[in-house]
Amino acid sequence: AAMAGCGWARAVRGLLLDVSGVLYDSGADGGVPIAGSAEAVRRIKASGLKLQLCTNETQATRENFVRKLRALGFDISVAEVTAPAPAACRLLRERGLRPHLLVHDDLVPEFADIDKTNPNCVVLGDAAENFTYANLNEAFRLLIGMEKPVLISLGKGRYYKETDGLKLDVGAYMKALEYACDIQAEVVGKPAKRFFESALAELGVPPEQAIMIGDDIVSDVGGAQQCGMRALQVRTGKYR
Amino acid sequence: AAMAGCGWARAVRGLLLDVSGVLYDSGADGGVPIAGSAEAVRRIKASGLKLQLCTNETQATRENFVRKLRALGFDISVAEVTAPAPAACRLLRERGLRPHLLVHDDLVPEFADIDKTNPNCVVLGDAAENFTYANLNEAFRLLIGMEKPVLISLGKGRYYKETDGLKLDVGAYMKALEYACDIQAEVVGKPAKRFFESALAELGVPPEQAIMIGDDIVSDVGGAQQCGMRALQVRTGKYR
Repeated sequence: AAMAGCGWARAVRGLLLDVSGVLYDSGADGGVPIAGSAEAVRRIKASGLKLQLCTNETQATRENFVRKLRALGFDISVAEVTAPAPAACRLLRERGLRPHLLVHDDLVPEFADIDKTNPNCVVLGDAAENFTYANLNEAFRLLIGMEKPVLISLGKGRYYKETDGLKLDVGAYMKALEYACDIQAEVVGKPAKRFFESALAELGVPPEQAIMIGDDIVSDVGGAQQCGMRALQVRTGKYR
Repeated sequence: AAMAGCGWARAVRGLLLDVSGVLYDSGADGGVPIAGSAEAVRRIKASGLKLQLCTNETQATRENFVRKLRALGFDISVAEVTAPAPAACRLLRERGLRPHLLVHDDLVPEFADIDKTNPNCVVLGDAAENFTYANLNEAFRLLIGMEKPVLISLGKGRYYKETDGLKLDVGAYMKALEYACDIQAEVVGKPAKRFFESALAELGVPPEQAIMIGDDIVSDVGGAQQCGMRALQVRTGKYR
């Protein structure tokens, strides 16, 4: 919250904020805000800085995600959130891809308008309890049966912190399918350069005038730096 | 079956045979023998060649595995099977490791005499339906909580063929945990050199006088060759 006043930050016009581990710790109970973070969002906005949440959250539609954040006290609108599922939908449409979804039930509505018949790719999100042996086998069989398997992964995080402890993230399951099929997934979401670029576009700020703040050294810090932005790693969330 | 009579094989005194995909296709129904394989085993033994099954099977104790093979018509004894779980137990004892097991229920009795209190390593087998999100998270949390995480994987196969289709093998889940924890697993079973060496020791035949026959180019063929053996890849099983 003090950052907007720092000398080194005077040339900064926009902030990209990670959400899980920065604004709150997620959890089955809806999650718990990190102390001071709602107030920090208010002060950032009051200071005139532009703000965009840049999240790999794929356990809910953007609308429900924002509803949850607002209930936790964050003054955030849907337009202020850049998330992987809408980006994936744009990519699927561009390339005429029909996905088989291995995602959280609550994310499925994001793909309502996408043709999913006779799938020619697999889209992998943080499916949590949907990561059953049967579901992972189904995705594997579809991929191994394709002439040129296409696996689109909504992020590649290793793990994240929920209120009841650390949880495996989508990246671990991405690696399992990559290895089984001997393929490379295409990552939509952080740390993909294109994802940060679209977040910056929504912010209307060039990379050199923006800072990314997150708790993941690869997805947040590495991804932002590759995009020409500065980045800060916070010590909340899964920081160890 | 004709191999024992081939000219190039005259210097061969022992055969190591993979089981799944070579002798039979496994399955929930107990599996189906591959045509001619039981007869081949009989003829190999009658020819005076020494025979050892060298398997990464970890869905059953060695005793139950042999019982199943005998019911399918294979003339095989427990001493003729080299399998990862007994090898893992030797390693655990040597190093004073107390495992948390993420394995198939039917494999658990192999570890009956091993101290499993206050685990300081994770042993991963082909757990099949036990590969739930909750179980994988539990193994992950134990590993990430260790000062020096030790992950022992019973094989590193990508997938195998069952009677109802291809199935993800333990290697895929090994990769998931390796990635999440940023560690390297230790593989017990094929293609580990030490595993082939113990199979050869049981056979009583030096590597240059033995041939490995399997359907997996990495676990069977690559592993055997690194051990100084010749190897043949069959076109049954998961061969594609």
